Amino acid sequence: MTEEAANIPLQWVGPIKIIGPEVEGEIEVPLATYEMPLWPSTNRGASICRKAGGIRTVLLDDRMTRSVLVEAKDVETAYNASQKLHQRKEEIAAAIRETSGHVRFVDMHHQIVGNLLYIRLEMTTGDASGHNMVTKAADHVLSWICTKYPELAYVSISGNYCTDKKVSAVNGILGRGKSVISDILLPRTLVKKYLKTTPEQIVQLNIKKNLIGSIIAGGVRSANAHFANILLGLYLATGQDASNIIEGSQGFVHTEVRGEDLYFSVSLPNIIVGTVGNGKQLDFVKKNLQKMGCTDCESGANARRLAIITCATVLCGELSLLAAQTIPGELMSAHLSIERPIGASQ
Amino acid sequence: MTEEAANIPLQWVGPIKIIGPEVEGEIEVPLATYEMPLWPSTNRGASICRKAGGIRTVLLDDRMTRSVLVEAKDVETAYNASQKLHQRKEEIAAAIRETSGHVRFVDMHHQIVGNLLYIRLEMTTGDASGHNMVTKAADHVLSWICTKYPELAYVSISGNYCTDKKVSAVNGILGRGKSVISDILLPRTLVKKYLKTTPEQIVQLNIKKNLIGSIIAGGVRSANAHFANILLGLYLATGQDASNIIEGSQGFVHTEVRGEDLYFSVSLPNIIVGTVGNGKQLDFVKKNLQKMGCTDCESGANARRLAIITCATVLCGELSLLAAQTIPGELMSAHLSIERPIGASQ
Amino acid sequence: MTEEAANIPLQWVGPIKIIGPEVEGEIEVPLATYEMPLWPSTNRGASICRKAGGIRTVLLDDRMTRSVLVEAKDVETAYNASQKLHQRKEEIAAAIRETSGHVRFVDMHHQIVGNLLYIRLEMTTGDASGHNMVTKAADHVLSWICTKYPELAYVSISGNYCTDKKVSAVNGILGRGKSVISDILLPRTLVKKYLKTTPEQIVQLNIKKNLIGSIIAGGVRSANAHFANILLGLYLATGQDASNIIEGSQGFVHTEVRGEDLYFSVSLPNIIVGTVGNGKQLDFVKKNLQKMGCTDCESGANARRLAIITCATVLCGELSLLAAQTIPGELMSAHLSIERPIGASQ
Amino acid sequence: MTEEAANIPLQWVGPIKIIGPEVEGEIEVPLATYEMPLWPSTNRGASICRKAGGIRTVLLDDRMTRSVLVEAKDVETAYNASQKLHQRKEEIAAAIRETSGHVRFVDMHHQIVGNLLYIRLEMTTGDASGHNMVTKAADHVLSWICTKYPELAYVSISGNYCTDKKVSAVNGILGRGKSVISDILLPRTLVKKYLKTTPEQIVQLNIKKNLIGSIIAGGVRSANAHFANILLGLYLATGQDASNIIEGSQGFVHTEVRGEDLYFSVSLPNIIVGTVGNGKQLDFVKKNLQKMGCTDCESGANARRLAIITCATVLCGELSLLAAQTIPGELMSAHLSIERPIGASQ
Repeated sequence: MTEEAANIPLQWVGPIKIIGPEVEGEIEVPLATYEMPLWPSTNRGASICRKAGGIRTVLLDDRMTRSVLVEAKDVETAYNASQKLHQRKEEIAAAIRETSGHVRFVDMHHQIVGNLLYIRLEMTTGDASGHNMVTKAADHVLSWICTKYPELAYVSISGNYCTDKKVSAVNGILGRGKSVISDILLPRTLVKKYLKTTPEQIVQLNIKKNLIGSIIAGGVRSANAHFANILLGLYLATGQDASNIIEGSQGFVHTEVRGEDLYFSVSLPNIIVGTVGNGKQLDFVKKNLQKMGCTDCESGANARRLAIITCATVLCGELSLLAAQTIPGELMSAHLSIERPIGASQ
Repeated sequence: MTEEAANIPLQWVGPIKIIGPEVEGEIEVPLATYEMPLWPSTNRGASICRKAGGIRTVLLDDRMTRSVLVEAKDVETAYNASQKLHQRKEEIAAAIRETSGHVRFVDMHHQIVGNLLYIRLEMTTGDASGHNMVTKAADHVLSWICTKYPELAYVSISGNYCTDKKVSAVNGILGRGKSVISDILLPRTLVKKYLKTTPEQIVQLNIKKNLIGSIIAGGVRSANAHFANILLGLYLATGQDASNIIEGSQGFVHTEVRGEDLYFSVSLPNIIVGTVGNGKQLDFVKKNLQKMGCTDCESGANARRLAIITCATVLCGELSLLAAQTIPGELMSAHLSIERPIGASQ
Repeated sequence: MTEEAANIPLQWVGPIKIIGPEVEGEIEVPLATYEMPLWPSTNRGASICRKAGGIRTVLLDDRMTRSVLVEAKDVETAYNASQKLHQRKEEIAAAIRETSGHVRFVDMHHQIVGNLLYIRLEMTTGDASGHNMVTKAADHVLSWICTKYPELAYVSISGNYCTDKKVSAVNGILGRGKSVISDILLPRTLVKKYLKTTPEQIVQLNIKKNLIGSIIAGGVRSANAHFANILLGLYLATGQDASNIIEGSQGFVHTEVRGEDLYFSVSLPNIIVGTVGNGKQLDFVKKNLQKMGCTDCESGANARRLAIITCATVLCGELSLLAAQTIPGELMSAHLSIERPIGASQ
Repeated sequence: MTEEAANIPLQWVGPIKIIGPEVEGEIEVPLATYEMPLWPSTNRGASICRKAGGIRTVLLDDRMTRSVLVEAKDVETAYNASQKLHQRKEEIAAAIRETSGHVRFVDMHHQIVGNLLYIRLEMTTGDASGHNMVTKAADHVLSWICTKYPELAYVSISGNYCTDKKVSAVNGILGRGKSVISDILLPRTLVKKYLKTTPEQIVQLNIKKNLIGSIIAGGVRSANAHFANILLGLYLATGQDASNIIEGSQGFVHTEVRGEDLYFSVSLPNIIVGTVGNGKQLDFVKKNLQKMGCTDCESGANARRLAIITCATVLCGELSLLAAQTIPGELMSAHLSIERPIGASQ
């Protein structure tokens, strides 16, 4: 394919113990990264979560999107067309189905700005992350629209209301990719023994750093410390299009002290993962997906399983980092002890 | 280091012809990605830009940040402390300098929320991207603060007002990493011949998709089609912490028709790149950085050179994709022709 | 009622000539404001729009919302409850209908964060803006939910996902209040004669100021110069809860040069107006609404008419200000000539 | 001035007891609003805060801004000009001083997007809110710039990077208007007796509604329930340009349980108020400002006093509403008992 490669160091972390309606078990997870502290840190989170009985993880929604963009001569024409299109959802669903055996229409939303009509097509795409599948389907629907409605003219196959690999609020509100949430109740004794901190300290840090700190930084639909690191590591190790960490990392940590214990949750409202398609044909990717049990489920269930594993892994990494940041000096000394041997150039 | 690795396919694109005050020349650029169409697409952009005389690229600013978080008993105490700290910038600069020969204090900003005081320390970090260098320096400053001002208590080494690997407005407004802008004037004849479109069509698409489309998607300080793809490819190929594409991809395309021609610009207000530190010690990374001329400049200039190359490469990739999206059906057929042989599973 | 009052100066502007499927005619509009230049400026816009044949205005959507907030012990319980609730939409619709003869269920969306369940109830509220009507209905639904699902506990009657009087992306994406768009094609001769500028200059200013300027300011779903001023004036003059200008002013200007002429549009995706309820019983409000023809239509149509008039008025004010800003020195000299006689204290 | 007026009902609330470095005392505050429940609700908050010893309020920063917009032929020219301008701050300060005896240069920031240069001029404006004062000064600076730097061309007197009356992150991060924070420690007994709730319930509601709820709604730098209502009422009663509630209401509530008690704070990073200028010459405004002690301080101190009073009042209103929302059914029954006699149409 190409003679050269970027060989990103990869280690397996876990096992991550997952419980829940769709996936149960202890699963090892590959993370490819240049940031070595990610491995022991995620492992620490995984370890305490196993001791606490496992991470409950639920997949709430699943759809991939592409927003086509057309324009009319004025708002009235654009509006009338939008109304007619919503009455022809079945024809649009049929047109989409023609483009692949794996793609199915789910829903459709639109926005009008002056004479511009943005149509956000939502579909399931089986085990594929679905970028190309929805583009192909959208391309077909767009031709159909421009033929049936000569009052609408092509502007773009993608109007950025999808939205792919860019900061947005729309993906979390209308859904894009998989919506997954993990939570766990951690006994105080475990928190103190293994994380060297208390439920109260983690809850306070989450409020002051992840919630308030993100708000004053001018973030959008984001409240976490480093979801991005874990997503990137797992995406690279499993052949994902890692640019999708941009919107994927727009997720939330919510915690509370319950009695003596720590309730800790991680919500990922829109992550994009797949087990077939670009990147998945590479040998090491195939092997990694297989080892995670993400190759032999029925269509759609492999990608859902991968999303569930991803969310539970993000919880482990986030829990560990937050715990470390509650302790003065801890983060730096952990970094130094891990990186010094190999990353001495700084 | 690790026995396993994620071997991300890598190809060299370009050469990218760059002109400007700091970097001049034709430079080949390595992109590691699972998305094969990225290579020919970026190459197409690079080719037309060479024919047009090169991409003017300017580095505007350079600083790395870490925001520590402390708390007082009330707002008055927090405010008074903040005022005193601003009067002791020289002592803080000295404390920072003690932590590394490469780190230098640049400036300091703060935010107060109730009794919480977020202090954003800004530093130059030589050729390092500087995550660890600023953490170490911030750790030292934080100890100093908590010692000198017992009315302030430690909350976190990072208060998310830095902000690292998360969506924000603060990084673009106050600066984080390198601020770089590339622009070029493309003659109409080249646009028509090589991109099969017109300056007017690209300008219109940029307005309707990148500007308006991003706005209605609820984006923040973001107006582009796929900066993330090019950043990711280049970051993986050069040993960068690719999680930083999250805020790094929050940048802008601005275009206009000038007479008959196309003015096309790409602004990246806050990208994080380095040529030493984590990841840079790997053989393929060293080799790639060397081939790009990013190893033998004076301290700081290697990383600046890499940032300039990054921005020019992003321009090539963005120009090519936007051109393709002006033409109905073009994006899909390009994808299919490139991916079919290897990515047949969809 | 109260012996004292804030007596905000009020002038009628227009008439505003409106065309479109729901409202046609020339309508005078009252604006109450401390900023005197708003009247002549809006009048200037109204005048040129009359000459150009009127402002096409379309109402696209109409719903009011309240998001209740409940919590479960974990995500699985919250998710299961959300699924059951979506299957009982008819019962929820019936519960809502019991609370008022004017309120009707439209749709329901939710978000889950960890164990927190935000349920966004959407309703039509006749001619009322509907704040209290949806609160009353939501209160009833919330009691019903907590009774039927003892696994869910009350957190708040409003979870800020509504969202009322606060910056958001959700109101524009899912809808809240009325969605209205106005547009017009202005002949170049009129633009030059009456606005002393050109279509090209206005289009360029809109791109560089309203689109790019708003993006770099870290705005969210907002691209305009001063929608807020016109909304405030009209809201105060017609008894509206003017705090709703916050999310109401999150709207867009889209313009283009068409041949020789100027296409100019104003999109207000979520404005809240009503013709009955708080404030509407005051004599001057009644009189103003009556004069605008917003009291004798069938239920719901009065408020829709007011929304349509509002949008067309916003277009007049925005057009005039943008035109002024294309000309160096113009804005300041206009302000000075109007304010000097009465506002001399600066 | 005008024969007609919008006569907004006005009541005095309080007294608000304020303590702090700049303002001390019990001050009555006028609120003009169509929403009657605002008065008793704010009074309830004021009452408990008096019993607790008063609201500590600190003004942290004070500046007004206008961002002019110019363009160059390319980024290099724009960047070089920006560097030269920063070296001539003293000349710019002098040019600004020429335009009014009350205006003084404070600082200057800029953003470059391609060839576009946004220059954000920051000034103090005495007791005026300063919209016109900074526009006049910016107009003068802009002429000076275009004369001195013929390579820069006028685009707009305002480039939306100011930003006035629009959602932004820039105003909170770089400052615009007054930055004010109020806080108070409320004994548990008072919270239980007068607010019928507990410190824990208010803290939990603030986290789940104001912090998380605002984040998932896609808010930006905003975490509160109804700052807007109190700002609007006070702005209308004191002759302010109430459109500025848009960015003014982008503020934060931070609370915590301290021992048995409730720490409650309200941060308003960027509110615009003045005691001279448009609106202030009206008789009722003059009288209201006088009664609040905002007319006889030295220049600048009147407006600062008004900002401090505003923030303390916002705290009272916010505290009362949050307390009510912790109790099922409370909000609705409070509204009904207050509004029924006069607002019966719903």
